[in-house]
Amino acid sequence: MTQPQFNKIVIFGVGLIGGSFAMALRKAKAVTEVVGFGRSAQPLVQAKQLGVIDRIGKDVAGEVGDADLVLLATPVGQMAGLMAQIAPHLGTQTIITDGGSTKGDVVRDAYAQLGGKVAQFVPAHPVAGAELSGASAARSDLFQWKKVVLTPLPENSAGSVALVRHAWELCGAMVSELTPAQHDEIFAAVSHLPHLLSFALVHDIAKRDNRDLLMSFAASGFRDFTRIAASSPEMWRDICLANRDAMLRELQIYIAELNQMSAALAGRDAEKLEQIFRTAQELRSGWTEK
Amino acid sequence: MTQPQFNKIVIFGVGLIGGSFAMALRKAKAVTEVVGFGRSAQPLVQAKQLGVIDRIGKDVAGEVGDADLVLLATPVGQMAGLMAQIAPHLGTQTIITDGGSTKGDVVRDAYAQLGGKVAQFVPAHPVAGAELSGASAARSDLFQWKKVVLTPLPENSAGSVALVRHAWELCGAMVSELTPAQHDEIFAAVSHLPHLLSFALVHDIAKRDNRDLLMSFAASGFRDFTRIAASSPEMWRDICLANRDAMLRELQIYIAELNQMSAALAGRDAEKLEQIFRTAQELRSGWTEK
Repeated sequence: MTQPQFNKIVIFGVGLIGGSFAMALRKAKAVTEVVGFGRSAQPLVQAKQLGVIDRIGKDVAGEVGDADLVLLATPVGQMAGLMAQIAPHLGTQTIITDGGSTKGDVVRDAYAQLGGKVAQFVPAHPVAGAELSGASAARSDLFQWKKVVLTPLPENSAGSVALVRHAWELCGAMVSELTPAQHDEIFAAVSHLPHLLSFALVHDIAKRDNRDLLMSFAASGFRDFTRIAASSPEMWRDICLANRDAMLRELQIYIAELNQMSAALAGRDAEKLEQIFRTAQELRSGWTEK
Repeated sequence: MTQPQFNKIVIFGVGLIGGSFAMALRKAKAVTEVVGFGRSAQPLVQAKQLGVIDRIGKDVAGEVGDADLVLLATPVGQMAGLMAQIAPHLGTQTIITDGGSTKGDVVRDAYAQLGGKVAQFVPAHPVAGAELSGASAARSDLFQWKKVVLTPLPENSAGSVALVRHAWELCGAMVSELTPAQHDEIFAAVSHLPHLLSFALVHDIAKRDNRDLLMSFAASGFRDFTRIAASSPEMWRDICLANRDAMLRELQIYIAELNQMSAALAGRDAEKLEQIFRTAQELRSGWTEK
């Protein structure tokens, strides 16, 4: 029998991402032991009962010294604090990675908190969010055919990057690389902005007196458009603050787009409206998620 | 053997809505003959080959006199012209209805074009759009458990309204009633606005030089948010113009919402952002399409 690739993995935040990572590696027979940490006891107890983790961690100092891999899978706002806690105890052979949806801020946190050990940190973003959260939503196939973006640091050794890449490939993901800045620009446009827009539409309806009437006539278009508005408020608050500058730029571009549409509508400019819709329709119907 | 409810139904525009209506009534054994009209030959030939219609209509005057039901299932911009063509030949026992996504403009057209025969027109909106269009996308179960909104006119007899209601119930739909103005206000908010917003996001990306890079990182959130941006540009141009005033109001309310969000983001107001997201998340996750 071959040895599993990872003897011990420590996961901070055993929710959808952290839990699914553990389940996928276990299914691939790639890990011997998974230890979970979290802010509160109940989700960890549930994760243990579901077999997502083997043990609930008690003492960070005692667990991160001999781990092969540490995954930070909490909302991005908590990562700096965790890094500060972990840094003094990180083993020399331990690689640390994360699952945050923003990378510029996490990388800044890593330089600030990990100091001389920053070479051991390989930033990553598994692009497999869902409106569900928590360990009970975790699935071993969550990352199958999904994209994972690594944003390696100049300090990372080729071996450290390869290890993190391999872990995600064992989960079934397709791994690519960007710089942190490229990553944050791209995801501001294709992920963070749509989330803001979807939250905004539902909020716009939620504050009206006739919201129940309105919702009773909402159908499949509304359903799909607003699926992501059921996402975790805390996680998206953190993403907004972490990728604030790129999101502000995207929001302003989008508001300008809406003002242009509003002017076309006000002026009954049928041709302009149809041209906007057709350009969008052609791009969207020619696209399939890869 | 009982007689089918409808001896002859004439459908103008044998696309997703018109074709699915024909197929559903045929499956319910509720119609003897379906005659189809359209702007161009090819889709009608396809509809005939697929068994969606029995005959391609040649002469409007000769077909609408003895029909039990006439369905206008074209983009709303074409309905006034069709009504003008049909009006002189409409049989005294023939009921006419439509499948338009806006009702105020269609009702205005009906008063203008049908004149003394307006009592025979029962306006309807089957809420079962899809980003697909054309007879090849038609399905006998498209309306199963879907909403159909009737916006009856004061001139309609109870019997005429009941007939149209019954036709849609035979298709498996859940039928409710609103006034045309109520209908257009509600659908501006929960359907027309989301379509505009989805078209706007894809258009915003389509006009950028790095659109291919951006689209290569788009994932499931983007996919669902923009599904409706693959809808027919012509149909949505018509809907925008038909429901222009309500949509302009909705757009302005939404732009104000985005400006508020942008200010919170600019001011790093974590609490405000989380409160907006939480209000939206609570409404959306407590909602299921009925």
